[in-house]
This record gives sequence, C-alpha cells and structure tokens, in this order.
Amino acid sequence: MTRQLYTFFRSSTSFRLRIALAYKGLAYEPHYVSLPKMEHRDAAYLALNPQGLLPLLIDEDGSSYIQSLAIIEYLDEQYPEPPLVPKDIGDRAYVRAVSQIIACEMHPLNNVRVLKHIKTQFGADDAATKAWYAHWITEGFRGLEDYLARAGRHRTFCFGDQVTMADICLVPQVFNAVRFDCPVDGYPIIKRIFDNCMQLEAVISTQPSTQQDAF
Amino acid sequence: MTRQLYTFFRSSTSFRLRIALAYKGLAYEPHYVSLPKMEHRDAAYLALNPQGLLPLLIDEDGSSYIQSLAIIEYLDEQYPEPPLVPKDIGDRAYVRAVSQIIACEMHPLNNVRVLKHIKTQFGADDAATKAWYAHWITEGFRGLEDYLARAGRHRTFCFGDQVTMADICLVPQVFNAVRFDCPVDGYPIIKRIFDNCMQLEAVISTQPSTQQDAF
Repeated sequence: MTRQLYTFFRSSTSFRLRIALAYKGLAYEPHYVSLPKMEHRDAAYLALNPQGLLPLLIDEDGSSYIQSLAIIEYLDEQYPEPPLVPKDIGDRAYVRAVSQIIACEMHPLNNVRVLKHIKTQFGADDAATKAWYAHWITEGFRGLEDYLARAGRHRTFCFGDQVTMADICLVPQVFNAVRFDCPVDGYPIIKRIFDNCMQLEAVISTQPSTQQDAF
Repeated sequence: MTRQLYTFFRSSTSFRLRIALAYKGLAYEPHYVSLPKMEHRDAAYLALNPQGLLPLLIDEDGSSYIQSLAIIEYLDEQYPEPPLVPKDIGDRAYVRAVSQIIACEMHPLNNVRVLKHIKTQFGADDAATKAWYAHWITEGFRGLEDYLARAGRHRTFCFGDQVTMADICLVPQVFNAVRFDCPVDGYPIIKRIFDNCMQLEAVISTQPSTQQDAF
C-alpha cells in the first residue's frame, strides 16, 4: 500500500514528519486533519489513532506509528539514508537532547490544545495567550541557545554540517514562534541554523504555506 | 571519575534516570538539587547545565548528558545489558511512542515550573492548580490507556514481559498523579503495569521516599 501521513499544515509535529519524509525522499499520500475543526477527535480518525493527536504515519506494510520523534527514529532505522541521527553514541545523545529540549519542553506548552485550555480554564484573552506563549518561547529558546553554545557542536546545522532530527524540531518551532510574534533575532545561533535550514528543499517544499490544507 | 547524577527526589525526570541506572546496575554519586529552593538556577548548577533543568548525568569519562529520554537511550547504547529499548525496529518505535506520550504530552504540562507559572500569570489557587493538573492527567492517561489497549503489546509491562524505557516513564508519572489526588484506578492497564513495576528492586530502591533529599 501507499505510505499515508495524517497531517495539518500548521501542526509543528506534522511539519517535522513532512520534513523527515521529504529529506529521505519517501513519498506518501497526505490526509488532512483539521485541528481547529476538531477532526482529530472524529470517530474515523480515532479508529486509526486512539490518542486523537497528529501526526500519524501508516507505512507501506500497513503498520501505524505515532509520536513524531519516535516516527523519525523509526524512519531513520528503516530507511537509513540519508541519516537523521548520527552513528556515534555521544553524538546521538546530543542530537536527541536538542530535539527533546524542543519536543518535551517548548512545543507541549504552546500547542493549540493548551492555548485553548488556558482560555477555557482561566479566560485568557488574546494578550494573555500571547504572554503565555512568549514566556515559554523565551524560556525555551534561551535554554536551547545556551545549550547549543556550550556544547559547541553547531555549525551550518545543530550538529555540524549534517541535517539531523534536531534541525527538524527546530524549524517548525521557529515558524510557530514567528507566527505568535516571537522573533528569534535575540538567539543568533538558532536564527542562523534556521536560516540555513530554510535553504533546504525538504523544508521549502513542506512548509505550512505549501500545504493543500493551508488557509 | 565516578558517575554523577544531579537529581531531586520528587522530579519525575530524575526518577526516570534513577530507575534506569539502578536497573542497569550502574553506580553513581547523587547530587541533590532542590527545585523548590530554585537551586537549579544557581550559578554553580548553570555552569554544569546551562539549560537549568534536571536531571544531569556526568558519566565516568566526564561527558555531560541532559534530557531524560536522551540519557536513557545513551545508557542503553553505552551499557546494553539489560536492555531498556528492544532490538526490533517496530518494537523500538512502540516503546518510544509510549515513552513520548508521557514525556512530551503529560509531564511537560504538569511539572513544578508550569504549576508555578499558572499561579503567577493567572493567579491559580490550589483548587485551580489541581483542576489544571487533573485535566492533563485525565487527557493523557485516557490516550495512553487506549493506545496500550489498541496496540495489544502490554503484558506484565508496557512491552510484553520486558522492562523498557516506557515503564520507566510510566512509574514516575503515576507517582506524580497520585500525589495530586489523581488515582489511576480508572485505567486498568496502566494500573496493572504500575503495580507490576512496583515489584522491581530498581523501582523500590529509587522511589522518592527513599532519597536522601526527601522531605
């Protein structure tokens, strides 16, 4: 069967997968699931992914995969070239740490379901929502910038001149931050890596504005 | 040099590492960093970990590692026996997905810094804080329980009868939930796996109440 990706143009975790698949040259049939329309909680989607979140990958053999970082590591093990995780054990730990700073500490606090919930529970208006967003972006990018600087392994990308899972996490997070008026000019390493990533065909061709479900 | 772990007794991510190290029989010297006293933002700690979060592992060769899941994978690659991540590619993706449901979607919304921030930004009182906590626990455990059920790979533990990184994420999350009055009785698979994990010496010996910095 054809590989299937369930995606939403503005979902950062879906964007991670789109970059990874494009970078590895793996074709897929996209299925667009609108988060604002709550299509991820429709019975049809829940039947495929009971967790009710994006993204979902169904590979050619029919196996389903959830959680974007787990899927990227799966793709890297199943389709090793070009690699997205380095071979050396210490290098792997570094790439995973950078990825997880974003995936475990920044994105979870600022995705749509959380922004909706602070409105529901605390009555957050637009200004309060932006303040919440900016707080976690500032906290996250400050820590990430410091970590990248201290580790001293960044060059063109987070890990030297190789595109890795870390860059795949960084790009959608910067897109998201810019959309919420949090520019990354104050984080020179992050900004430079992002600008370099924006030269990659795998990023250019999969960015939110290129997607059929973009509005 | 002796392996060093920077830990706080109640930190779920530190607890993950304590279990992993104990399960693999890897000795370490603990350094206690109090999150309530903000010792993770002291200059001395920031010099070691600029991100200013726990845990931090410094291995015998002096290399530093951050981000608990990245550290567990590092330990598993550096010290393979007994394994915490299975060998088969699909199995690895499953174990990582379960781990990330907890590490990327549950824990980040309910850790101390977030609970502090909803108090600062929204004036959340104890009841509102508990409601926030319970919302994400319910959402997370519901999705996790459904995913475990649908995948059908759980038995004694999340992945058959093998202890994996997934169980190491599950145990501290359940401890944390119980502490915030969110019992797991409504999630029979999670509860059974947790109860089985509580028979493991690596869990019994590293649980928060056993730690020298416990209060």
